[in-house]
Amino acid sequence: MAAFDEVQVLAFDVFGTVVDWRGSIAREVDALGLGVDGGAFADAWRSRYQPAMQAVRSGERPWVRLDVLHRENLDATLAAFGVADRLDEPARVTLNLAWHRLDPWPEARAGLARLKSRFVITPLSNGNVGLLTRMAKRAALPWDCVLSAEVYRAYKPEPGAYLGVADTFDVAPAQVMMVAAHAADLRAAAACGLRTAYVDRPLEFGPQRRGDVPREGDRFDITSTGFDDLADRLGC
Amino acid sequence: MAAFDEVQVLAFDVFGTVVDWRGSIAREVDALGLGVDGGAFADAWRSRYQPAMQAVRSGERPWVRLDVLHRENLDATLAAFGVADRLDEPARVTLNLAWHRLDPWPEARAGLARLKSRFVITPLSNGNVGLLTRMAKRAALPWDCVLSAEVYRAYKPEPGAYLGVADTFDVAPAQVMMVAAHAADLRAAAACGLRTAYVDRPLEFGPQRRGDVPREGDRFDITSTGFDDLADRLGC
Repeated sequence: MAAFDEVQVLAFDVFGTVVDWRGSIAREVDALGLGVDGGAFADAWRSRYQPAMQAVRSGERPWVRLDVLHRENLDATLAAFGVADRLDEPARVTLNLAWHRLDPWPEARAGLARLKSRFVITPLSNGNVGLLTRMAKRAALPWDCVLSAEVYRAYKPEPGAYLGVADTFDVAPAQVMMVAAHAADLRAAAACGLRTAYVDRPLEFGPQRRGDVPREGDRFDITSTGFDDLADRLGC
Repeated sequence: MAAFDEVQVLAFDVFGTVVDWRGSIAREVDALGLGVDGGAFADAWRSRYQPAMQAVRSGERPWVRLDVLHRENLDATLAAFGVADRLDEPARVTLNLAWHRLDPWPEARAGLARLKSRFVITPLSNGNVGLLTRMAKRAALPWDCVLSAEVYRAYKPEPGAYLGVADTFDVAPAQVMMVAAHAADLRAAAACGLRTAYVDRPLEFGPQRRGDVPREGDRFDITSTGFDDLADRLGC
């Protein structure tokens, strides 16, 4: 444990790491009775996430929060599934806010509560502050504050997001540990000098497909199977 | 209660409204044994707060967070009290962080918990996010998120702070209610279209002096004696 004595802040990726976005979106889509497979729809909607943010990262378009990108991507996905005429404007607004209603992984809430006893715990998600706050309120996620790419106007993996958290708390990057189920997020955090904790979430993309798991050569400070395991390893 | 059905977010001023800054700072100063009166020192330190922010508001100096202004003001106050040679650099760093350790008014925590059952509750303070987060963690203030002038780069009473909260939650200004013990804060919020709740904190400036109380002509939506009373009036 001694090696992590200097860590003061744990910054969490959220989509996939804290909450089961795919299962939650699939359930909402299935409940609409559109005649599409909810899981396939969730995958297709999510597949437009990185390209949409990339247009902001590259400067091709000015800063825009994730709620807006989600909505553009929803409209495109409905069209791609041939059901654009099945959802009117109010129904689209409601479905888009499904990202505010994602359910946490079963042990997430209790694990966060343990980690909160020793560290400042905050999301560091590409989701906007309003989205993350409403999600946390509904799911009783016990964050100490709500940080986001939106606060720093920098979508991960841009360095400004990771370094922003250290700046907010006036600590060195090594006093912040990034917690994520995605190796690319952790590599980018490590490149900024943050500590890193990988959390395995084998069902993020459903039972058939694996996510962004560590590869040979990755050296994360901690590799864990969930937040309870992470709390054990950090001595909470 | 019906008139407030549309309100979704309660945004709280913090210094004086949620926490007793004067009593908390006075206790820390008295404990240092500098031979100065803690209450008088707290008043003098705080008296430099508005002028320091005004230099940022006016554009005379670029954005800088409140921790930095507090430190500059601490150095000036120590000099003014003739005790500049009594505190070395580490002691000044520690004393400056007394603003992260302010104690809440006795009923604040329980009142916030009641209000949280119905509304999104967030600070909207000129204190920076790190300050507010550490204060909340120490005092167990149950915020849903931590918003601040720092997030919007706008010190209250600049409109950008009040309108920023509505923007963060993608709601109309009238769906946000500002809660403060200072009439000027509420007047500025009302001018932006926010709802307003005044909370009387008669001891903010000590037993001898009143603060920024409502004057004739002020029309705040609610006038209350504390957060429990506010919760009663909002039907929580």
